[in-house]
Amino acid sequence: MTTSGKLFGIGVGPGDPELLTLKGLRLLQAAPVVAYFVAKGKKGNAFGIIEGHLLDSQTRMPLVYPVTTEALEPPLSYETIIADFYDTAAALIGGHLEAGRDVAVVCEGDPFFYGSYMYLHDRLATRFAVEVVPGVCSMLGGAAVLGTPLVYRNQSLSVLSGVMPESELRRKLADTDAAVIMKLGRNFDKVRRVLDDLGLASRSLYVERATMANQRIVPLADVDPSASPYFSLLVVPGQKWQG
Amino acid sequence: MTTSGKLFGIGVGPGDPELLTLKGLRLLQAAPVVAYFVAKGKKGNAFGIIEGHLLDSQTRMPLVYPVTTEALEPPLSYETIIADFYDTAAALIGGHLEAGRDVAVVCEGDPFFYGSYMYLHDRLATRFAVEVVPGVCSMLGGAAVLGTPLVYRNQSLSVLSGVMPESELRRKLADTDAAVIMKLGRNFDKVRRVLDDLGLASRSLYVERATMANQRIVPLADVDPSASPYFSLLVVPGQKWQG
Repeated sequence: MTTSGKLFGIGVGPGDPELLTLKGLRLLQAAPVVAYFVAKGKKGNAFGIIEGHLLDSQTRMPLVYPVTTEALEPPLSYETIIADFYDTAAALIGGHLEAGRDVAVVCEGDPFFYGSYMYLHDRLATRFAVEVVPGVCSMLGGAAVLGTPLVYRNQSLSVLSGVMPESELRRKLADTDAAVIMKLGRNFDKVRRVLDDLGLASRSLYVERATMANQRIVPLADVDPSASPYFSLLVVPGQKWQG
Repeated sequence: MTTSGKLFGIGVGPGDPELLTLKGLRLLQAAPVVAYFVAKGKKGNAFGIIEGHLLDSQTRMPLVYPVTTEALEPPLSYETIIADFYDTAAALIGGHLEAGRDVAVVCEGDPFFYGSYMYLHDRLATRFAVEVVPGVCSMLGGAAVLGTPLVYRNQSLSVLSGVMPESELRRKLADTDAAVIMKLGRNFDKVRRVLDDLGLASRSLYVERATMANQRIVPLADVDPSASPYFSLLVVPGQKWQG
């Protein structure tokens, strides 16, 4: 009887290939199969980060998203399509694991911090041995390149999505010491308006593709809302504590 | 004229020495002076993590905290004592930088996520070249060893301190999808009471010293509040999204 393979969810960090951990590198190179999520026609951000570390003998397994937007016309449903996609991806990976081959799923940032790996984990962790290697998440990469301490001492930090309704965003931002806002894109104007209203705009910092080769730091007032990419984030640092 | 040295704030991850990044390791080994914070009579957690990576030629520079508690009797003031301490530490490091020697300050987790490095950064970054290398923070290490996805899709995440007043903790926990609560220690009972009241206790997971050699995962109900160490944390994961 074959012993099943082990599933590894490996966080590869925010973009700079050198922000991979020693453990992530070791386990990545030891896995016969390396899987990664990728948009149709793209190379895949996570794959791009670790490509240089792979050996020729390792099997590459792209998991290509079936849709490029969540806004679909009925009878299409994003939820149904994406659930089917994760089911299929989990079955493919499960096949390798059943055959005794370890599979490493690489994820940008950290696997459990908004990573697509979570959907595979929830489907496979009850049946197979799993190990998650944490990674540097995008908000920490962002704070580092912006050169701004994020949270001091006993301050609270809220990680928020730009997708949130304006009233919710306003309420949560008003009740936190520091914040990181992700998923800006088409939500940028709404987010900037809320920051302005709350008097937080002057403290806010903006970065696109933090730690990647094409990173861009732009003053908040100069951001073109029609061109803010998915991998952009806003940081509202906590007030400095003198220490 | 001597060119000033550069200050590096290097996140060394939550405890497992293998969770250091490739970049952190490279810059750490290149620095002639390596500074680290440490409690009186202790070895220092950050130092323990990277000790095995240091070369004999590197100068070790312990920065020993002058106090072991924030609860001091007047006329002593924690704020004054600790501010003086950071002033002195910054001056010592500034001396090396002025002499042209690079200094790497190593920090557990990430330098800008509640790290003591921030107080040196705020004092030195205006005068010297600085670079911050982000690291895997403790909450991501915690989620990884607990095997729990932290936040799905557009969920919000709140990072809270157990030090917060009970009413504030309750309000913030009630208005978030997922949470991480740090600095438990003597605040554990209060925090558990709030989680119970909000019906969150059954979803909550607890870990001490995540990814360290002496890591301990304990069911919430079994935690001894009198023995919860500083490096413990509670995770309230977001509700699973099927994907």
